[in-house]
Amino acid sequence: MTERRFSPAQLFGFACAVYQGIGVGEAEAAVLADTLVQADLWGHQSHGVLRTVWYARRILSGAAVHGRDPVLVVDAGAVAVLDGRDGIGQCIARRAMDESVARAKAHGVGAVAVRNSGHFGTAMYFTRRAAARDCIGILTSNASPAMAPWGGRRKLIGTNPWSIAAPTGIGPPCVLDLANTVVARGKLYLADKRGAPIPDGWAIDVDGVPTNDARAGIAGTILPMAGHKGYGIATLMDVLSGVLSGSGFGDAVVGPYVPDGPSRAGHLAVALDIAAFRDVAAFKADMDRLIDTLKAAPKAQGTDEIFFPGEPEHRAEQHQRAAGIALPPDTVASLRRDTAELGLTAALAFLG
Amino acid sequence: MTERRFSPAQLFGFACAVYQGIGVGEAEAAVLADTLVQADLWGHQSHGVLRTVWYARRILSGAAVHGRDPVLVVDAGAVAVLDGRDGIGQCIARRAMDESVARAKAHGVGAVAVRNSGHFGTAMYFTRRAAARDCIGILTSNASPAMAPWGGRRKLIGTNPWSIAAPTGIGPPCVLDLANTVVARGKLYLADKRGAPIPDGWAIDVDGVPTNDARAGIAGTILPMAGHKGYGIATLMDVLSGVLSGSGFGDAVVGPYVPDGPSRAGHLAVALDIAAFRDVAAFKADMDRLIDTLKAAPKAQGTDEIFFPGEPEHRAEQHQRAAGIALPPDTVASLRRDTAELGLTAALAFLG
Repeated sequence: MTERRFSPAQLFGFACAVYQGIGVGEAEAAVLADTLVQADLWGHQSHGVLRTVWYARRILSGAAVHGRDPVLVVDAGAVAVLDGRDGIGQCIARRAMDESVARAKAHGVGAVAVRNSGHFGTAMYFTRRAAARDCIGILTSNASPAMAPWGGRRKLIGTNPWSIAAPTGIGPPCVLDLANTVVARGKLYLADKRGAPIPDGWAIDVDGVPTNDARAGIAGTILPMAGHKGYGIATLMDVLSGVLSGSGFGDAVVGPYVPDGPSRAGHLAVALDIAAFRDVAAFKADMDRLIDTLKAAPKAQGTDEIFFPGEPEHRAEQHQRAAGIALPPDTVASLRRDTAELGLTAALAFLG
Repeated sequence: MTERRFSPAQLFGFACAVYQGIGVGEAEAAVLADTLVQADLWGHQSHGVLRTVWYARRILSGAAVHGRDPVLVVDAGAVAVLDGRDGIGQCIARRAMDESVARAKAHGVGAVAVRNSGHFGTAMYFTRRAAARDCIGILTSNASPAMAPWGGRRKLIGTNPWSIAAPTGIGPPCVLDLANTVVARGKLYLADKRGAPIPDGWAIDVDGVPTNDARAGIAGTILPMAGHKGYGIATLMDVLSGVLSGSGFGDAVVGPYVPDGPSRAGHLAVALDIAAFRDVAAFKADMDRLIDTLKAAPKAQGTDEIFFPGEPEHRAEQHQRAAGIALPPDTVASLRRDTAELGLTAALAFLG
């Protein structure tokens, strides 16, 4: 079977119908659906609509509570602490980034620590909101245990993703978005779903033995990127996200792959208002010069084009907005099965 | 020949005598000397007194100007822009981090962008100053071109080091300090000095061919850590350090290995005052819990002890403060030769 293509509107409608079908209000359902479809548009399938029902199950179990607004427990000028009260991670992260931008517009910099949130999907979804308002956006999160401390063999620290986005003059922002593991955990789920082996160096099994089996890697431990450096980065991202905010940290964070248990994920959203540092047009002109320099580099053999960070996602979005979003048949099948299981016939209709 | 051991005071005296011998004032000479000796104490020999004369040559050529105070060109509450006016990078970075901490104490967060600075040595020297004042310190820098954009083969982007430090209850801070290359550039100079080959995966030569020869790697291109992820991180660190501050960026930054040309390096120093977010004692207790959890992980075969980030440097310092700092004979020989060449007999005396 070949991949099927769906319009963004179709998948947005599907995800909205799933969430509204289980009682989530229209506004929260739209945020959830938009983050999922946007991840697919950027080519981040592992964070796309594939996850629709995972989040739905956490809402159904009460692990993530819909309709519960986050509360500012510290509201002190440039700085704030937002308590997500076990609400929906995507909605909480969006609020935190926007709070941070608002504070940056008043004070030059904003820093909002978030406790008791949840898995928010793709970090660049939020930092790009800051870039669109002429800020540099920085967002860190902790996550459920995915790797061992360097030299260990028990999962105690998350992938702990982080993103930085900066505006440019040419249009698409310059964006970093990464997990500190060799690969995002979702890529192992995708390989497992596809029945594909995983490359060397991605994971060790429960006994600490290197493996090419996705399921064994999921049960075992993903390795950090760049060896001990990735371990160090993940640890300090946990300090910024979990310890500074007074949220869960280390092995106390619950992931989106299990249906119950409050997440206790924490984040830190920082915004730097470019205008507070220098002329925004001059900043953007320099961004464009930097991008031009990188893209004009002499190419290594086998390279057709050099991309700036965030450009591949921008290209993928342009392509998929025109051609539709391709989903593998088993992703569609499992979405249909899970949606039917929940009795959400209105959502099913969107999958055709 | 075996390594010789020197007391920290002896090496501090040596470096001070070199800088004062070429006309640098006592205060600036002491900052320079302290950063170099501290790097050796932490076991970061590539950033230690080995570099004493490199910085001296840049001061002698006028590329780095001593006695020139940095100036605040933006002074706006939580945010500032510091113009280093081509002064001494270590002194400018120290001022920037301290400015950032002062602003964090007033506003909860401080962000100081720095332009026209220079190579500052070891980033954690500065972030630890913030941690000592109960802040989380974050410092980024750009640096002279050391690697190609992903898919390219010309050096256009620096190692762009960054550091995050957070206080703990147990004493030594939890500290991240890394370059975004597979190895710090200084490690290739050290290998070359020692006549040792470099491991696979460290560098490509000028033609883009993988090499085990340190000198060929220095002439060619170091590879980013974690492939395209390291490229992305280095690029965004340049955005934060060079573009936001209005300093040099990309291939416009001059490194400490060449004696002339203003550096134009930029930095960003951010401080988060923990007390603005939560109770400091509770934060430190959580840091200790996180560290305990990591260190207590079941160990992989061949591992004697699991360390938290920054702990190896703390151990090295404890050991070398007691046993002395070991320097390889050719490092001592080249320090003696270079110091004699500059006619600095007072400095020579410290090397015995």
